[in-house]
Amino acid sequence: MEAKAGALLTDFYELTMANGYFESGLSESIAYFDLFFRNIPDGGGFAIAAGLEQVIDYLKNLRFTAGDIAYLRGKGIFREPFLEYLRDFSFACDMWAVPEGTPIFPGEPVLTVRGPIAQAQFIETMLLLTINHQSLIATKANRIVRAAAGRRVMEFGTRRAHGASAAVYGARAAYIGGCVGTSCAMTERDHGIAAMGTMAHSWVQTFPSEYEAFRRYAEMYPDSCVLLVDTYNVVKTGIPNAIRVFKELRPRNMGIRIDSGDVTYLSKKARAMLDGAGLSDCSIIISNSLDEYIIRDVILQGAQADAFGVGERLITSKSDPVFGGVYKLAAMEHDGNIVPKMKISENVEKITNPGFKKVYRLYSKKNGKAMADVIALEHESIPDDGSFEIFDPAFTWKRKRLTDFRAKDLMARIFDKGRCVYESPDIDAIQAYCREGVESLWEESLRFENPPVYYVDLSAELWALRTRLIHEYQKDFE
Amino acid sequence: MEAKAGALLTDFYELTMANGYFESGLSESIAYFDLFFRNIPDGGGFAIAAGLEQVIDYLKNLRFTAGDIAYLRGKGIFREPFLEYLRDFSFACDMWAVPEGTPIFPGEPVLTVRGPIAQAQFIETMLLLTINHQSLIATKANRIVRAAAGRRVMEFGTRRAHGASAAVYGARAAYIGGCVGTSCAMTERDHGIAAMGTMAHSWVQTFPSEYEAFRRYAEMYPDSCVLLVDTYNVVKTGIPNAIRVFKELRPRNMGIRIDSGDVTYLSKKARAMLDGAGLSDCSIIISNSLDEYIIRDVILQGAQADAFGVGERLITSKSDPVFGGVYKLAAMEHDGNIVPKMKISENVEKITNPGFKKVYRLYSKKNGKAMADVIALEHESIPDDGSFEIFDPAFTWKRKRLTDFRAKDLMARIFDKGRCVYESPDIDAIQAYCREGVESLWEESLRFENPPVYYVDLSAELWALRTRLIHEYQKDFE
Repeated sequence: MEAKAGALLTDFYELTMANGYFESGLSESIAYFDLFFRNIPDGGGFAIAAGLEQVIDYLKNLRFTAGDIAYLRGKGIFREPFLEYLRDFSFACDMWAVPEGTPIFPGEPVLTVRGPIAQAQFIETMLLLTINHQSLIATKANRIVRAAAGRRVMEFGTRRAHGASAAVYGARAAYIGGCVGTSCAMTERDHGIAAMGTMAHSWVQTFPSEYEAFRRYAEMYPDSCVLLVDTYNVVKTGIPNAIRVFKELRPRNMGIRIDSGDVTYLSKKARAMLDGAGLSDCSIIISNSLDEYIIRDVILQGAQADAFGVGERLITSKSDPVFGGVYKLAAMEHDGNIVPKMKISENVEKITNPGFKKVYRLYSKKNGKAMADVIALEHESIPDDGSFEIFDPAFTWKRKRLTDFRAKDLMARIFDKGRCVYESPDIDAIQAYCREGVESLWEESLRFENPPVYYVDLSAELWALRTRLIHEYQKDFE
Repeated sequence: MEAKAGALLTDFYELTMANGYFESGLSESIAYFDLFFRNIPDGGGFAIAAGLEQVIDYLKNLRFTAGDIAYLRGKGIFREPFLEYLRDFSFACDMWAVPEGTPIFPGEPVLTVRGPIAQAQFIETMLLLTINHQSLIATKANRIVRAAAGRRVMEFGTRRAHGASAAVYGARAAYIGGCVGTSCAMTERDHGIAAMGTMAHSWVQTFPSEYEAFRRYAEMYPDSCVLLVDTYNVVKTGIPNAIRVFKELRPRNMGIRIDSGDVTYLSKKARAMLDGAGLSDCSIIISNSLDEYIIRDVILQGAQADAFGVGERLITSKSDPVFGGVYKLAAMEHDGNIVPKMKISENVEKITNPGFKKVYRLYSKKNGKAMADVIALEHESIPDDGSFEIFDPAFTWKRKRLTDFRAKDLMARIFDKGRCVYESPDIDAIQAYCREGVESLWEESLRFENPPVYYVDLSAELWALRTRLIHEYQKDFE
């Protein structure tokens, strides 16, 4: 059922290019690639980086099996020396990346690879696949969690995910974004994220009556007993039967789940009925095609929800299911010198930033809020106690001198010539890091629609390099 | 990287329910579940069923490992007899399903399971996950392929898929829907679907000049040589350099790929330049955020495309990324008798069809076109040579007497008490079956927007049963 993410889980052109570099004597040339994205899903103010731990696993275990080699030989386009090169393949690049849970912005590198071009190019597909998917879901989950305004959000989307990996790693990413748990048992076992759930309508239908179904469930699960009250009629039978069973058996952690109908109205009615029966400690869980917009609305209308179960619209990021990360050549080394490279495009936003770069986040010393991100060349440093001029890369008349800030280098060293030098934090630490990162943003950036554009600017030196390269390319076409 | 789709890739509540049935002495009660969907993605006229082969693999290999059992024991809510039951678990149900590639419609069963309720319920999550995902992508691919009107469509979305399984099984489903190949190497090796690709912009940037990059590629790959012409300037350098290399080296299966800019304008310009150079056999491939709407538009405007590379909007079904299949209890057996079950809902469309059922597709004997689908009870047969009255399940005054038809039982027997009795056709046969199925529909059903609603009606006997059960439930609430 699952796709084993071996070496062949890649676009075939990565293999034809690797072969081309190998056969041209270029495979060991040192190249720099940046992974970055261009647009924030749902028009939001920021995205959340996720997937690095799985990228690391992939790179540590990247080998071509005998079966992979046999398949490639069968294609009839690769010579034996290249197949031997693949047989001996072991990841040997350097890598830097922003930690998982970091709020990230368009245009800035979130991951940089330096190494032999045949390798550094080859890993493109899986890096993008992994970071794109998990960052998409972490970003969506964070929106939904913010909409819930302190109420718990549970990820319930396994059955609507795009396959097995989407279910498990989507649930992982949702947790990073702030969900409290998942419906998926495997995600609990493999990633330590609490599995949660109630019952299906079929459980209620199997018993002679709703009361008997509820009672049996409460007998079985006295420590956590959430009853699904909408199989027949929420108000006339579901809540009364739940109240009867709760009073008879007094389970701990009582709750009811409403999965259809007008959940706002029904939850208010349920709250009143439960409170009237002395069950004010019984929680109410709402589910049924929720997302950040619906959650915001039902809360505005006074829905009495203690928690939300969110399925298909979270696990697919339904309103915007593509995270458009790309992986672009930024430089090559020739005789030990870094030669910056950039892709020119008629579309100004698609022009890349050349060179070996770093990203700094500048926090105000006054209030700790993030003021801007600055992309600089690797050898530049940003003095904490000075002032620093930044340029908007597209509209260069937009420049700004920043003072009184603390600069933080956003990227951590992950691999040193193929050796992993980074230990992934545990999932709770990643979730906390995400929460702190989001809290460091201005409140305006948290708006769902039309948030302000956060500054992602270039250092003066990078801006000058970029301008020079554009002019050089232009001359070629005159 | 990948999620191993073992027994724990399931919503946790399937396990608490299985335990509940087991501890209540109900686990061996025979239940009938139907898998069906309610809405066609993108408001289209039909969907394409896909994923059955992976469902079969899952059920054949469904076992609880020692690790799974240890995890479950650690939850502290399951007793040892249930864990032993899981340790001995082996799928023992009956299953019927429509073959992959079949056009399917809302409300009709596409898969039916009959067996011990603890088992038949437990498999819900993976059945939905698998069928929902692949049917979604097959349906979207079929729309895109129809828009391309005979031109080839290649699936290029691996890097934007929702994880590894989404990439590989999405590519498989896209092929069922009519794509000619995929970018993904693993899908070729594991599913026999041709892998295709060109080169990245970085290939062109790595060489001292675009000409040298193209020439090196053509030397390496003389049997299939598609050059990416938009790294610098399509018209001024890309196409001229491609023409020069093609004339110098005369590779077979020449092509160029345009991945940015106004692809309609550029493809016309490219066609003229290539033809002018005597390279009318050089094909033109267009890519860059395509879907069925953009492809239809660029063709209308005269784009000169021989093939389309379609990525993120196909592999995520961007415009509608959720396939809402559900899995509902339809009947239980008591003392050997089938007792129909249905879920009542305030939302009329959510009321399920009770009983053990079959689906027939009625084809006109005159022109072979599909006239209607009929859901009937399992013991009913539909005489080919007679006439048959059908009812709209929601609007029962809409009834119709059909004559002069050939009736086809849509579902095949897949499992007989846990033994697989079905052999999945090879992927090309599935693709052909899909094409024939789509061709049997009225042209109006192929419209992208506002297609007519295809008849999915009930037999008189099923309609009567449904009506009786609704009245019985209603009485309970009076």
